[in-house]
Amino acid sequence: MSYTPPLAEQRFVLETIARIDELQALPGFEAATPDLVEAVLTEAGKLAADLFAPLNVVGDKIGSKAVDGVVTTPPGFKEAYNAYAEGGWIGLGAHPEHGGQGLPFVLASAVQEQITSANMAFSLCPMLTLGAIEALQAHASPEQQALYLAPLIEGRWTGTMNLTEPQAGSDVGALRATATPAADGTWRVKGQKIFITWGEHDLTENIVHLVLARTPDAPAGTKGISLFIVPKFLVNADGSLGARNDARVVSTEHKLGIHGSPTCTMAFGDNDDCVGYLVGAENAGMRAMFTMMNHARINVGLEGVAIAERAYQQALTFAGERVQSAKFGGAREPVRIIEHADVRRMLMTVRAFTQAARAIAYLNAAAVDRAHAEADAAKKAEAQGLADLLTPVTKAFSTDIGVEMSSLALQVFGGMGFIEETGAAQHYRDSRIAPIYEGTNGIQALDLVGRKLPMDGGRHWRSLLQRERSFVGGLPKTGELGQMVPYLEDAIEALQTASVWISGNEGDKLADTAAGATPYLRMFGLTIGASLLARQAAEAARRLDVGEGDPAFLKAKIATARFFAEQLLPAAPALLGPITRGADLLYAIPEDALPG
Amino acid sequence: MSYTPPLAEQRFVLETIARIDELQALPGFEAATPDLVEAVLTEAGKLAADLFAPLNVVGDKIGSKAVDGVVTTPPGFKEAYNAYAEGGWIGLGAHPEHGGQGLPFVLASAVQEQITSANMAFSLCPMLTLGAIEALQAHASPEQQALYLAPLIEGRWTGTMNLTEPQAGSDVGALRATATPAADGTWRVKGQKIFITWGEHDLTENIVHLVLARTPDAPAGTKGISLFIVPKFLVNADGSLGARNDARVVSTEHKLGIHGSPTCTMAFGDNDDCVGYLVGAENAGMRAMFTMMNHARINVGLEGVAIAERAYQQALTFAGERVQSAKFGGAREPVRIIEHADVRRMLMTVRAFTQAARAIAYLNAAAVDRAHAEADAAKKAEAQGLADLLTPVTKAFSTDIGVEMSSLALQVFGGMGFIEETGAAQHYRDSRIAPIYEGTNGIQALDLVGRKLPMDGGRHWRSLLQRERSFVGGLPKTGELGQMVPYLEDAIEALQTASVWISGNEGDKLADTAAGATPYLRMFGLTIGASLLARQAAEAARRLDVGEGDPAFLKAKIATARFFAEQLLPAAPALLGPITRGADLLYAIPEDALPG
Repeated sequence: MSYTPPLAEQRFVLETIARIDELQALPGFEAATPDLVEAVLTEAGKLAADLFAPLNVVGDKIGSKAVDGVVTTPPGFKEAYNAYAEGGWIGLGAHPEHGGQGLPFVLASAVQEQITSANMAFSLCPMLTLGAIEALQAHASPEQQALYLAPLIEGRWTGTMNLTEPQAGSDVGALRATATPAADGTWRVKGQKIFITWGEHDLTENIVHLVLARTPDAPAGTKGISLFIVPKFLVNADGSLGARNDARVVSTEHKLGIHGSPTCTMAFGDNDDCVGYLVGAENAGMRAMFTMMNHARINVGLEGVAIAERAYQQALTFAGERVQSAKFGGAREPVRIIEHADVRRMLMTVRAFTQAARAIAYLNAAAVDRAHAEADAAKKAEAQGLADLLTPVTKAFSTDIGVEMSSLALQVFGGMGFIEETGAAQHYRDSRIAPIYEGTNGIQALDLVGRKLPMDGGRHWRSLLQRERSFVGGLPKTGELGQMVPYLEDAIEALQTASVWISGNEGDKLADTAAGATPYLRMFGLTIGASLLARQAAEAARRLDVGEGDPAFLKAKIATARFFAEQLLPAAPALLGPITRGADLLYAIPEDALPG
Repeated sequence: MSYTPPLAEQRFVLETIARIDELQALPGFEAATPDLVEAVLTEAGKLAADLFAPLNVVGDKIGSKAVDGVVTTPPGFKEAYNAYAEGGWIGLGAHPEHGGQGLPFVLASAVQEQITSANMAFSLCPMLTLGAIEALQAHASPEQQALYLAPLIEGRWTGTMNLTEPQAGSDVGALRATATPAADGTWRVKGQKIFITWGEHDLTENIVHLVLARTPDAPAGTKGISLFIVPKFLVNADGSLGARNDARVVSTEHKLGIHGSPTCTMAFGDNDDCVGYLVGAENAGMRAMFTMMNHARINVGLEGVAIAERAYQQALTFAGERVQSAKFGGAREPVRIIEHADVRRMLMTVRAFTQAARAIAYLNAAAVDRAHAEADAAKKAEAQGLADLLTPVTKAFSTDIGVEMSSLALQVFGGMGFIEETGAAQHYRDSRIAPIYEGTNGIQALDLVGRKLPMDGGRHWRSLLQRERSFVGGLPKTGELGQMVPYLEDAIEALQTASVWISGNEGDKLADTAAGATPYLRMFGLTIGASLLARQAAEAARRLDVGEGDPAFLKAKIATARFFAEQLLPAAPALLGPITRGADLLYAIPEDALPG
């Protein structure tokens, strides 16, 4: 159950979709030269393959569990974590002023994808730390930044994100944890949080909890939420560790997957002595939390890509070795199952969906980089709009794909797929969390239709669709690239129609928008994914023409794009009816008639 | 995590789709009166709900494991099994001459669905016994029948099905187990079998293994396979138990799901003393095994229905209780999540797919009954043709649905869905085996396009499509029923086109058929499923008109059929392109370029 980082694929998507050459030209990203990009992917890939991939099964079998307030991680996790932290990988995208390397987020995301493929349960630990770093960089005071950022970036400490309470899941505004001011200017935090990923562990000497809570007299809902730093051990002014804070793990969950990742119930202030430090202004916590969440949503989207990639690699290896049955309509000799058309269809499906989802995620992450680094205000706003628009698609489309593709890859193994020792089942189990956390995929779909489409008068989706339509219009009408054109045109046309329909819904009609949100997001992901694959195919054709690059890789890219356009994309326009049908039928059965 | 048998739904499908009234008119099925059908469903449903449903979690947690040749089943399984056997449920569909009740297979299948919803791992035990009963009824000698059938039908013994060997999974013809004749007319069986469901356990005093093996000088492949009875304990002429046979469990598998069901590696003849009894003629084993498999495939298809039904019920209960977030575009108060459009969409999707798959399975099982009981040769052949045609669809479409719907139902729970204690995760894990065993769904798709479509010159698919087209043609063009018509027409038209295309493929073109097999089976399932739901909707409308039956149930049936036609069926015609595109693109990437 080895893992081979898909270096050529990752580099190609960084070049053609993320346009990392353009990013390198932006102030602050000068270091992201092609050589450095190659070196980063290669070295991180080695860590992922050699150190983290072999620990994936161990983490699944043994898991991380809380016993008497102590969470012990699986054997090998601590050593692997140390190697990762010492390599400087956690701070890859963080600001140089606090010890980060200031490299583009999209490159850090490509590295995160590798680590996630290798060991999804482990990958959540640096992912959450990255989120904490982002939030503190954006919203913490200079003093707080000086105290907390360097240890997080160096990996000496990790970060967590504490939103959820039993009654407040998707509805963050319903949270009840409190923070009351103390005489010394700090706060006393009190409340229970659930589903806290890596909330307690034995990998580092300290943990920086970012906790959402309500201050006295805070307004109801999300407008009355503030963000607090709650360190596990208090931090002295010189950065050394002080007293143990009143923030403790109560228990860990018994989960379907990601067993190596401790999912903690956390008690803050059980002894009324949990010290917290306000980040930014009172009642501005949601904004700060969204900083974390937007990055985290892209990285969670990448979990879908990562797990599908790993599942693909394993299924491919098995299919190339297992001999079983003669080919349908062929000679009588049994063949390796990779020669069977139906197995090839499964493998091509996993391959194509994985690459489509990766392209969306990298485009999204690169837009985040542009929004950050562009000096020109108009370009900055345009990039931010694209990043915001794509984020729910990256999160939900990719994680749905992760589940579906890990299931399909498992199927390739036949009976062996159901046996835990094979490893395919772990991907099927691990992948299932990603459509749920970091905002369920249903929430993402509502975010897309409710917030992201209307942004700036609908400018961003119109401009994205216009760009893709014009790209498709410029494709040759014949040859391999031309084969894809009618499918792409149909899908873009349908997406345009659906987007216009959604944009026209107001008042009572918003119920219809909500009813169509999930199939709309799927159509969006399929269509943009197909178009981004076609862009890669066009660039592959160009390189083949001029004799650049590895012909086998480039031809495979064209075939994969074609497979997606011809075999998978036709599902997109077929969703136009379901999207625009309205909400009535969803509510046609009264609730008491729904059972039975 | 209770289970409520969907009695009204099951009865309605038995009435309108299986036409159990017509079955009752056939010789041998006279006992299947409406009152008896109702009593059977009610009583079996009670057993399922009260006895087996509570053991589902226990079975999952504790599992059945082999230790030193002994398999201990989870606490409570033995008592529940005894109650089931003593109630006469195992022999519901078996021949009366050996103690069975001779009721229609479709009714036995409805009971099997209930038990499977309640406890899938347990349900496999009677399911395998049923298969053994079917095979012995059809192929064993009168002496063998006299000795083995009554104890199996009474549930004093259970049956198993031994095909798979490490090198012979989908390719049964590759099996190597041997049987050599002994001087006394019996045989000595030798070989290892894997993945043997309920191969060893502590529920009954004896186990009747049906084992496929090769006799000396048997031809290669499936034509050289013979079927043997290999009892765990030899059976004396008076039916009492004799010596322990040389047939032993080696180990049980550590699986993703169905933990309560022991999946055994079996060693036959390790001490060269495994006594077997030939069933039927030498080298006629595959035919006998197909008798078992065809019934088993329908019952495995029902596993998809059953698990989706259970997952639906649990998700519905949760959605009706959990309060979270205000409605999109609505007032600010948080509502129960069942009021959210997207949650309602998930529930309606699970509901509609479950009912569509159930209708196909029941139609299929009823066709088996007709083929068995019709006196008229033409009607018998027609029924057999329909049964054969539908079997791969029932198996593959329903089990794919089972996986997809248990995943969607899990999503309704949000974060709680990923916690094992919630129970949704078990369905997600349990359901995953059904697309694999009893012939993978890829094998089913090839069976459909390669064997079932061409049967009798394509008469059976043509007659099914003609029947559904003419039904749709007779629907009103307006009103609720009329809403469905264009969707049904599109889908039937596309299925017709795809079927004609497949029927025209010969020689080299068979590779194209194989390439399109899986999406073709999906289109078939979607289209026929939609049409059978529309038939139910039409009958519901008729009953509403004349004031028969429960209006709430009947209106819900119409709404469910409409939801399927309008929201889910559009995926079917969109598969026409992918089905007919041919195999070239599947093989466009050379194997060595598939990694990375």
